Amino acid sequence: MQIRPFPFLAALFLPSPALAADAPATPSAIVAQAPASAWQAIAADTLLVMTVEGDKRVVIQLAPDFAPAHVANIRALARAGWWDGESVYRVQDNYVAQWGDVTEKKALPIGIATDIRADYARPLAALKTPVTPLPYPDAYAPRTGFINGWPVAIDEASAWLPHCYAMVGVARNLSPDTGTGAELYAVIGQAPRQLDRNIAVVGRVIEGMDLLASLPRGSGDLGFYAAGEKRLPILSVRLASDLPESQRPRYQVMDVGSRSFADYLRLRANRKDDFYERPAGGVDLCNAPVPVREAP
Amino acid sequence: MQIRPFPFLAALFLPSPALAADAPATPSAIVAQAPASAWQAIAADTLLVMTVEGDKRVVIQLAPDFAPAHVANIRALARAGWWDGESVYRVQDNYVAQWGDVTEKKALPIGIATDIRADYARPLAALKTPVTPLPYPDAYAPRTGFINGWPVAIDEASAWLPHCYAMVGVARNLSPDTGTGAELYAVIGQAPRQLDRNIAVVGRVIEGMDLLASLPRGSGDLGFYAAGEKRLPILSVRLASDLPESQRPRYQVMDVGSRSFADYLRLRANRKDDFYERPAGGVDLCNAPVPVREAP
Repeated sequence: MQIRPFPFLAALFLPSPALAADAPATPSAIVAQAPASAWQAIAADTLLVMTVEGDKRVVIQLAPDFAPAHVANIRALARAGWWDGESVYRVQDNYVAQWGDVTEKKALPIGIATDIRADYARPLAALKTPVTPLPYPDAYAPRTGFINGWPVAIDEASAWLPHCYAMVGVARNLSPDTGTGAELYAVIGQAPRQLDRNIAVVGRVIEGMDLLASLPRGSGDLGFYAAGEKRLPILSVRLASDLPESQRPRYQVMDVGSRSFADYLRLRANRKDDFYERPAGGVDLCNAPVPVREAP
Repeated sequence: MQIRPFPFLAALFLPSPALAADAPATPSAIVAQAPASAWQAIAADTLLVMTVEGDKRVVIQLAPDFAPAHVANIRALARAGWWDGESVYRVQDNYVAQWGDVTEKKALPIGIATDIRADYARPLAALKTPVTPLPYPDAYAPRTGFINGWPVAIDEASAWLPHCYAMVGVARNLSPDTGTGAELYAVIGQAPRQLDRNIAVVGRVIEGMDLLASLPRGSGDLGFYAAGEKRLPILSVRLASDLPESQRPRYQVMDVGSRSFADYLRLRANRKDDFYERPAGGVDLCNAPVPVREAP
C-alpha cells in the first residue's frame, strides 16, 4: 500500500487509528490521545446548523466574543427561519462559497442591526482568556496565536479572526458598514488574509466543509452561478440550542492552553516521523487549525 | 448589485473588465493592463494536457529547472500514454487531489527512473535567473520570492517550489526515493507547506483547478475513493508539444522581473481601493500566485 501525503484537517474527524506504542509522534496521534481534560464543549447557542438539499448538514461555530453584533444578527436570522428556502449561490474557486438571499430583496426581520462597524477587530482587553502564541512569523500581522479555541492575528492592542480555510465571514457592499450577517461565506482555498479587518469574520465551519468546498464553481463573474447553473438549496438554518436535544450536534474544541495543544503545535511545525524527513521548523497560523471533534 | 469579497486567482482567467481611467489600482487591473513585454510564452514541452471524462481539460505547467529527473519521467510517461485509462482516485478535503494508477500494479515504461532523490531543492547557483524577492516574513523558510515565473522558498544556498494551491507534487511511499512521477497530486486547499522538501514538486495546474478542486471528496482513509464512489476517468495525458499545433494550449506567464509584476505584488500586499479600507502591508508567498494567461 503506497502511502501518499499524510492527512491534514480531515484526519481530525476520522476515527482515531490504533497507535503502536512506539509510533513516532504526529499531530493526529496527539489529537487522538488527548485526555478528556484537553477538550472543551462548544455551547449549543454558538452552533449554527444548516441543512441543505439531500438532508446534508453544515455546522458552523459562531464567535460571539469576536463579532458580538453580527452574531446577534445571525442568531435572530436563524430564529426567524430567514435562510430557509434560500441557497448557496456563489462558489469561486480558491476563494469562497457564499449563501443567503441571491435576490438581495428579501426583507430582514425586525431588530436586525444594519449599521455594524465594530466587529473587524477586538480590543485585547475585552477578550477574557490569555493568548497562546504561535512563535512563527506571519506576513499579515505582528503576532499570531490562539485565544479561547480560535486562531487570532494580533497587533499592539487588538486581535482579530483571520481568513483561514473554513472561516466564515460577512459579505458586504462597498461601504464597510453594510454587512448584516444575512449573506455569509466560507473560505474554500488558500487563506485570503487580505480580507482580514476589511470584513467581519464570525465563525468557522466545523462540519460539512467537504460539501461546501466541492460544490461546482459558478461560471459567472466572481463565481456567482450563472443562468442554468444550479444553486444549492438551503432547507433550514437553526441554532443547535433551538433544536430538540436529540437533534443537536455536540462538538468539542481543544483547549489552546492545554499540554496537548502545545504538543500539537510543536509537531505541526516540526514533522519528523515515518514519512517526514525534514521538519519545516515553523507553521502558518492557517495551517494549524485548532482541533475540533464530535463529543465522545 | 451587492459586491462581495473581491476576485482572486480566478480573476486572472476572466475577461479583463473595462477599467475606468480613474479606477483605483488593483492586482487584477495591473494584470489586465500589463504590456505584452511583461509576458513570457510557456514552452509547449513543459505543458501537460490531461483530458478527463466529459472531454474536460486540465493543463499542468512542468518545472524542469526545479525537478529535472521527475519531469523527464513525466514526459516519458505521457509519451507512452501511460495515464490513459487511469483515474483521479483520491480527493482529500483541504489537501490534495491525486491521480495515476490506483492499483499500483501497472508496469512503468522502460527507462523510467525509480530512485530519484535530488529534486527536493535546487542549488541557487543552478537556477539561471535572478530572484525577485518577496519582502515579507514566512513561517517555513528564511526567504521567499520568485524565479523564472515560479514561487520559491529559499535558504542559504538552495531554492525549492512551495506547496501552494494548485502546485503539483509526486506522491511517494515512506521511503523518500520512491516517487517516480507516475502518481501525482495537486494541492486543493490551504498550502501544506510542511511537505516542502519532503516531496518533489514538479509543476502547477494552470487550467482546470476548478475541476480538480470541486471533485467529490473520497470517504476512505486519506480521501481515497471507497467502494461505490466514482473515480474520475482520465482519457489521456499528453505533452502539448506532442499534440497537433491546432490542439495545443498556449499560455503565458508574467515575467517576475517586470514592472507589472512588481506593481502586482505591491498591490496584493497593500489592497486599498473601492472595497478594501485597511491594507495588510504584506502577503503570503502562496497568496500571490504568478499571473498566467492564455496567449492573446
